[in-house]
Amino acid sequence: MKGKKSEHTEISEVGEFGLIESLTSGIKTINKSTKLGVGDDAAVIKAAKTTVVTTDMLVEGVHFNMMYCPLKHLGYKAAVVNFSDVYAMNAKPEQITVSIAVSDKYALEDLEDLYEGLLLACEVYGVDLVGGDTTSSLSGLIISITAIGSADAKNITYRSGAKPNDIICVTGDLGSSYMGLQLLEREKEVFKVNPKSQPDFSGFEYLLERQLKPEARKDVFEFFAEAGIVPTSMIDISDGLSSEMLHICNKSQCGCSIYEEKIPIDMATANAAEEMNLDTTTCALNGGEDYELLFTISQADYEKIKEVSGISLIGHINEKETGCMLVTRNGSLVPLLAQGWNSFKE
Amino acid sequence: MKGKKSEHTEISEVGEFGLIESLTSGIKTINKSTKLGVGDDAAVIKAAKTTVVTTDMLVEGVHFNMMYCPLKHLGYKAAVVNFSDVYAMNAKPEQITVSIAVSDKYALEDLEDLYEGLLLACEVYGVDLVGGDTTSSLSGLIISITAIGSADAKNITYRSGAKPNDIICVTGDLGSSYMGLQLLEREKEVFKVNPKSQPDFSGFEYLLERQLKPEARKDVFEFFAEAGIVPTSMIDISDGLSSEMLHICNKSQCGCSIYEEKIPIDMATANAAEEMNLDTTTCALNGGEDYELLFTISQADYEKIKEVSGISLIGHINEKETGCMLVTRNGSLVPLLAQGWNSFKE
Repeated sequence: MKGKKSEHTEISEVGEFGLIESLTSGIKTINKSTKLGVGDDAAVIKAAKTTVVTTDMLVEGVHFNMMYCPLKHLGYKAAVVNFSDVYAMNAKPEQITVSIAVSDKYALEDLEDLYEGLLLACEVYGVDLVGGDTTSSLSGLIISITAIGSADAKNITYRSGAKPNDIICVTGDLGSSYMGLQLLEREKEVFKVNPKSQPDFSGFEYLLERQLKPEARKDVFEFFAEAGIVPTSMIDISDGLSSEMLHICNKSQCGCSIYEEKIPIDMATANAAEEMNLDTTTCALNGGEDYELLFTISQADYEKIKEVSGISLIGHINEKETGCMLVTRNGSLVPLLAQGWNSFKE
Repeated sequence: MKGKKSEHTEISEVGEFGLIESLTSGIKTINKSTKLGVGDDAAVIKAAKTTVVTTDMLVEGVHFNMMYCPLKHLGYKAAVVNFSDVYAMNAKPEQITVSIAVSDKYALEDLEDLYEGLLLACEVYGVDLVGGDTTSSLSGLIISITAIGSADAKNITYRSGAKPNDIICVTGDLGSSYMGLQLLEREKEVFKVNPKSQPDFSGFEYLLERQLKPEARKDVFEFFAEAGIVPTSMIDISDGLSSEMLHICNKSQCGCSIYEEKIPIDMATANAAEEMNLDTTTCALNGGEDYELLFTISQADYEKIKEVSGISLIGHINEKETGCMLVTRNGSLVPLLAQGWNSFKE
């Protein structure tokens, strides 16, 4: 698609069928379960295993801002956040459908960029794009993705399986995507005042990447299979650690203790938080969009996981009556609160 | 949900999780294949058969107009048009996911009405609502639905299987939904001029129902199974007979002859077309939103279908070289053109 960036083809020139043809003509499917992809009333899938299905909608101006979100990255992220939900079931994503509504400010080339990102994510994660819908919108861009995954029924991991004494684990580090967003928002404000300003993100590249091009934890899903671990419960962190931990405790009818000092935080996150006068722990607890996996394992699996790099043991599950608590660095107990992002309130 | 119509609860008051809880708390699943519905990172499905997946996005101001589209009907229609795509594969719809973006002009009660329609459609068609996403939008309402169906692999009917000499069949009648839309648009214009005017739709109730509360052809899918018919190709009519017939011919690498006099048209459609100075055949060919099934059968199945009420035999498949032709009442040949609805051009 190189060299197309300067072209501008009105979508109305090619029409819906021309658009679909242009976006999907090069797609090849790779999963054995994909019997038919784009091009009929429906895609056809023959899965030998159990199927999981998840869906997500991203709205311009609510979930992303075209001022700092390149369309290729947006497509990549839109796919990845759905894969993350499939991994959170301990399942392998295999197919996605993609529905897009666009206003006339977008050209065919813009949607080609978006699809380039979508298809790159599909390639990286071994997923087939098997269908979708494209239509016009009165304002902005809306992307709705449904991801389908497969797993042996016995491996599927729900939010509801945590038991007292289970160990609470989290992958990667938390709060970095949120700090990336804060940096982008800050530069946007600077840019509004002085359009000639050049953003300076040096030292914070990792935070921007976490926000603009997050990855789902395919590697952790694969590690579970190799190590013979089936977590007792699992969820991916999209709304912040606090909010997700409360979901697990609620569905599992249990309480928890999470140790502030054990929460994994990258140095860049801490530095950026300090620079912007934000509390690092609050960012890690409530920032969201980490797309890390939060899961619980039984004590029996402790030895298998205790020294795995990139997995932090941050607390344990308790009886319901003890509530859901953060144990702060100074040893006091603070109830966990769901203060994660809410599209209806911000 | 009776008695709630006069209430107005801001969605921001209940938040996303409150909204999801309010909309989905009463949902019970009925299909054996549905292992887990709403409430985890993904739904879980265990289908013994082959799975088909289809998705559709409806945008306020593009696909529907809140001036004359009650939300309950909109929910019903949004679900039904997806079921129609599943039936067009000769498969049984069993699950849907529903993603909704809404602006703050909508109250919780509005979304409850929408869900009432969605769930009514699910009940009528035996489908489980198993997941979704709810978020805010900057303008209007956007609904994205993904439907999942199942079928024995040998029964799945593609657009690509039509062969020369196959008989072209269509269910129900065509053009009525389009005429219903024309009547609604006309009354909307009258209302703009004189807000006290009362719309007069007498004699045209059928057309309005076809537009506002269409049904998918579950009965025809069931008839195929009983009669032991597997169509050689099939598609549902959402963009108009011409456009869909061209899809079949394109995918099947064949031509066709369709006889104008055989195209099924309801008397109310003809009357309304006359009243509004529209050509009835054009409405039937290009109107769209009929959600009838267009399919082809081999000559061997002719006896099984020739006298079934509600199925019209409208033409036959030819070699590709003969093109796709309409045989008019006076015997002349006119090429079929795809003039169906295009959201990017209107």
